[in-house]
Amino acid sequence: MSETLGFIGLGNMGRPIATNLLKAGFGLRVYNRTPSKAASLGDMGAVIVETPLDVAVPGGIALTMLADDHAVEEVCYAKPSFVEKLGKGGVHVSLSTISPATARRLSKHHQQYGVEYVASPVFGRPEAAAAAKLFVCVSGAILPKKRVQPILGKIGQGIFDFGEDAGAANVVKLCGNFLVASTVEALAEMMVLAEKNGISKKAVAETIGQFSPMHKSYADLIAEGQFQPAGFRLALGLKDINLILQTAAESVTPMPFASLMHDRWLASMAKGRENLDWSAIALDAAEQAGIKTMAAP
Amino acid sequence: MSETLGFIGLGNMGRPIATNLLKAGFGLRVYNRTPSKAASLGDMGAVIVETPLDVAVPGGIALTMLADDHAVEEVCYAKPSFVEKLGKGGVHVSLSTISPATARRLSKHHQQYGVEYVASPVFGRPEAAAAAKLFVCVSGAILPKKRVQPILGKIGQGIFDFGEDAGAANVVKLCGNFLVASTVEALAEMMVLAEKNGISKKAVAETIGQFSPMHKSYADLIAEGQFQPAGFRLALGLKDINLILQTAAESVTPMPFASLMHDRWLASMAKGRENLDWSAIALDAAEQAGIKTMAAP
Amino acid sequence: MSETLGFIGLGNMGRPIATNLLKAGFGLRVYNRTPSKAASLGDMGAVIVETPLDVAVPGGIALTMLADDHAVEEVCYAKPSFVEKLGKGGVHVSLSTISPATARRLSKHHQQYGVEYVASPVFGRPEAAAAAKLFVCVSGAILPKKRVQPILGKIGQGIFDFGEDAGAANVVKLCGNFLVASTVEALAEMMVLAEKNGISKKAVAETIGQFSPMHKSYADLIAEGQFQPAGFRLALGLKDINLILQTAAESVTPMPFASLMHDRWLASMAKGRENLDWSAIALDAAEQAGIKTMAAP
Amino acid sequence: MSETLGFIGLGNMGRPIATNLLKAGFGLRVYNRTPSKAASLGDMGAVIVETPLDVAVPGGIALTMLADDHAVEEVCYAKPSFVEKLGKGGVHVSLSTISPATARRLSKHHQQYGVEYVASPVFGRPEAAAAAKLFVCVSGAILPKKRVQPILGKIGQGIFDFGEDAGAANVVKLCGNFLVASTVEALAEMMVLAEKNGISKKAVAETIGQFSPMHKSYADLIAEGQFQPAGFRLALGLKDINLILQTAAESVTPMPFASLMHDRWLASMAKGRENLDWSAIALDAAEQAGIKTMAAP
Repeated sequence: MSETLGFIGLGNMGRPIATNLLKAGFGLRVYNRTPSKAASLGDMGAVIVETPLDVAVPGGIALTMLADDHAVEEVCYAKPSFVEKLGKGGVHVSLSTISPATARRLSKHHQQYGVEYVASPVFGRPEAAAAAKLFVCVSGAILPKKRVQPILGKIGQGIFDFGEDAGAANVVKLCGNFLVASTVEALAEMMVLAEKNGISKKAVAETIGQFSPMHKSYADLIAEGQFQPAGFRLALGLKDINLILQTAAESVTPMPFASLMHDRWLASMAKGRENLDWSAIALDAAEQAGIKTMAAP
Repeated sequence: MSETLGFIGLGNMGRPIATNLLKAGFGLRVYNRTPSKAASLGDMGAVIVETPLDVAVPGGIALTMLADDHAVEEVCYAKPSFVEKLGKGGVHVSLSTISPATARRLSKHHQQYGVEYVASPVFGRPEAAAAAKLFVCVSGAILPKKRVQPILGKIGQGIFDFGEDAGAANVVKLCGNFLVASTVEALAEMMVLAEKNGISKKAVAETIGQFSPMHKSYADLIAEGQFQPAGFRLALGLKDINLILQTAAESVTPMPFASLMHDRWLASMAKGRENLDWSAIALDAAEQAGIKTMAAP
Repeated sequence: MSETLGFIGLGNMGRPIATNLLKAGFGLRVYNRTPSKAASLGDMGAVIVETPLDVAVPGGIALTMLADDHAVEEVCYAKPSFVEKLGKGGVHVSLSTISPATARRLSKHHQQYGVEYVASPVFGRPEAAAAAKLFVCVSGAILPKKRVQPILGKIGQGIFDFGEDAGAANVVKLCGNFLVASTVEALAEMMVLAEKNGISKKAVAETIGQFSPMHKSYADLIAEGQFQPAGFRLALGLKDINLILQTAAESVTPMPFASLMHDRWLASMAKGRENLDWSAIALDAAEQAGIKTMAAP
Repeated sequence: MSETLGFIGLGNMGRPIATNLLKAGFGLRVYNRTPSKAASLGDMGAVIVETPLDVAVPGGIALTMLADDHAVEEVCYAKPSFVEKLGKGGVHVSLSTISPATARRLSKHHQQYGVEYVASPVFGRPEAAAAAKLFVCVSGAILPKKRVQPILGKIGQGIFDFGEDAGAANVVKLCGNFLVASTVEALAEMMVLAEKNGISKKAVAETIGQFSPMHKSYADLIAEGQFQPAGFRLALGLKDINLILQTAAESVTPMPFASLMHDRWLASMAKGRENLDWSAIALDAAEQAGIKTMAAP
């Protein structure tokens, strides 16, 4: 049997990733705030522990897959924390989408305990996680990156290394999310132009879908006006856009598309659409062209 | 042998399209302002004529593949014109990317001569034209669309019908170009964010390329900073963005991404980059973040 | 008695201007499409004529105050036109807000008849016109500018000379309108911020009014939500913004505030507010922040 | 002699304000990080103290005029702080431009010590402060506002009350700064349009100056290209724009002009202009239109 790993965070992404690690023969010590979500992993042989601290074994490896910067900071800065318990020779593999600045601070924080921080945010939705088809961006010190490579190889179909800056992998993750958000906004505007010219949105979506798979899924969502249940909540989309703008400001980089999307998403929030899929920003684009849309829930 | 068709405009797109029609067994009467470009088609059996008027045979079909609205209007409104000569039962297949408003005006104009206008703008670059892999958007009256289907089937891999409004197919073509332009702008901003965070642009391009073929080619161009020779001239890109904004204004549709791109492209023109590939707008994005770029040619 | 002048266009601005010229002792030959509007001037001694052509006397001066580029072109390019009748030594004083490009074309056109074109757009609303308190921007050839100076001196409180380019005075007029439109948009956004923070809009308007008279009137309008009757119709505001963007594009000048206002005004048009005062764009700003506004008329 | 007041912060604004309070007969206990700046006030009778804590007398009033949120928080959250020493019945008059959110937090914090927080940000530049011509926006509890009114009456020409929310006065202050920033951006774009059309920027500034005093001073600065010494540093302008955007985001208010200015100011920072006057953003507007400008310092 391979090494035993710690794992914190068994949400929509964390659970399938942890499952794949178990299947690959790793031992797992898992923690989730809501214990019931850990049960199925227990059935597969994972040890379910009662505090984040307990996932760690000295000198070992622990992975986290949590909702946002705050959640990651909370478990890392706890007194005592799993980081402290990992101690000298330990490695923290951080899979969450967080700000590069937070990643850099965590990396520095971990050093005082002799723990290495490997930034490892992933591209892919829950289905890709279940199929071990994620794309993993990594950055951090060379040796720990090498050490965790066999682990990341079991959860994704590709690993992309962005060097030693702990923040770099998260910059790239934000870059990717920025491209997707831009695609959603562009499709939203385009669909309104089609509609106002009397053209079937579904026909346009079908045509566009021929050229670009990334555009296809959002074009279909917008054409059908099916924004519930949310694949990715609009409010989380705004959080990501804000992370992008914050990272851009810190590196003194004007990003006008991001600024514009900030306002589009904010208007959608103001209209009460925070729990719809983020492609529901298309409703605002339509309203701005005088089209009556369904009321917000 | 199939019917003989008229063909006006043998540029980068027109020539491979006309060649495919010859290969498919159609007779062709071709006209190009610069006669030398017609020579190779003559060798393959096309009749080279000396005026646009002469491509037409009464009641027949003529195709045009010209640079812009003005060029199409010039040949259609000439006195006498090939449209007049086509006369009752004739069909004009207009492959060019022009404004929906112009298409609608031409359609109406043609009716007085008993000629049907079939809007047929195409998606695809010269290589796709040569491989008969274009995607063709059509709109116009039902019977002539049916009549020209076997012709369009020889130049493309898919035909998408957007109904009877002569302007509709051109709206969809502009929609597609808008998506591509938005992709270029999003990649430009993203690459600057990466660069200002010390990350290799080529590494980011490689990662992005895994998810989205439409993003891949432009990401590579921007990462390499290789903007000459131009695949699509920046000045032509601005022309398309202006057609989009004009069509949006006519249908009272705000398109903030398009407005923003108008300004980015305009700044690039002001900096003397009209003949570079349109992905060279990335230079402006970089300069706005304080990065020194190569001087404009 | 002074010289007799021709005058075309007796709308909200033209009538008070013509009245002031009569009072100052000039003879007037006036034309208006709707003849009833000329009656009061007839009572004061003006000669009411039946065609635009008839306002002109050979070698004399004629003024126009018309709604837009099209209206000015129509009377100038008529066959025959008042310009032709003015003939050698004549001067056309064009008071309308039109595009610099149109002004330049008219200036060139007039030369073939020996007529000089003096661009003379004015700043000020109807009350300022009635009080002879307009500010007049002029450009064109030196001698005719000198010749018409006593006339312009009777309708305004200041004359600003922008040189010999016939388009220059209109550029400056558009510059001024751009500043006012920007003030309206800024106030609209600001008022929403105040409202969403629970602050009285009227109290903010009163405070702002202390510092800046230009801001005061629009701040009051927006705070009171009183958008009818329109001081300046929203649809005309969009026309001006479009003239600004067109002039900016021709001179390769990105103007991001203007682009953004284009979209704001367009959204307001799409929502059916074309006949409200242009400060009614504040309704859209409020709606985008989730505030319910009065329905459009 | 009137009551003795505490005063922290003797910068460009704080010194003239404190001077006016002394002249009006108030006793003053003053603190400044750089003691030399307090000397002249000592000559006029102020007691110069060595720590922020020492400005306070139990149950008394203390004013602060500090650079930013951080500086105000530092003196308020010190252990022990002047707030603690003011204690029950004390009042803190906060004159600085800070975020409404910080003001609200401070107000709550002060309550535990029985101290009232009166937000009192001021409009006006150092000359206005010296002339006691500031406009003061106040918000907070009714009784302490009444108590400090005689004090504020000695430093300004007008007091505007925005109710009991401690954040309100700061929202209004940010509203005002937003209007000024918008005026600067609008003038910058307008001047480029004039320049690209061959029109003298000084002539345009002179014309504009007739209508609007608020526009006049910035129009002159931009026309002359005189950005040093800075009346208001560009970097501080970005700080204010960021406070506006942050306040807008917290109240779910899209402010597209503010977003756009964020990017303009950020580009100017990236080009090394942080220490120029904020009207130097006009250089970026010019560069985007292809005009060569002076190099950044």
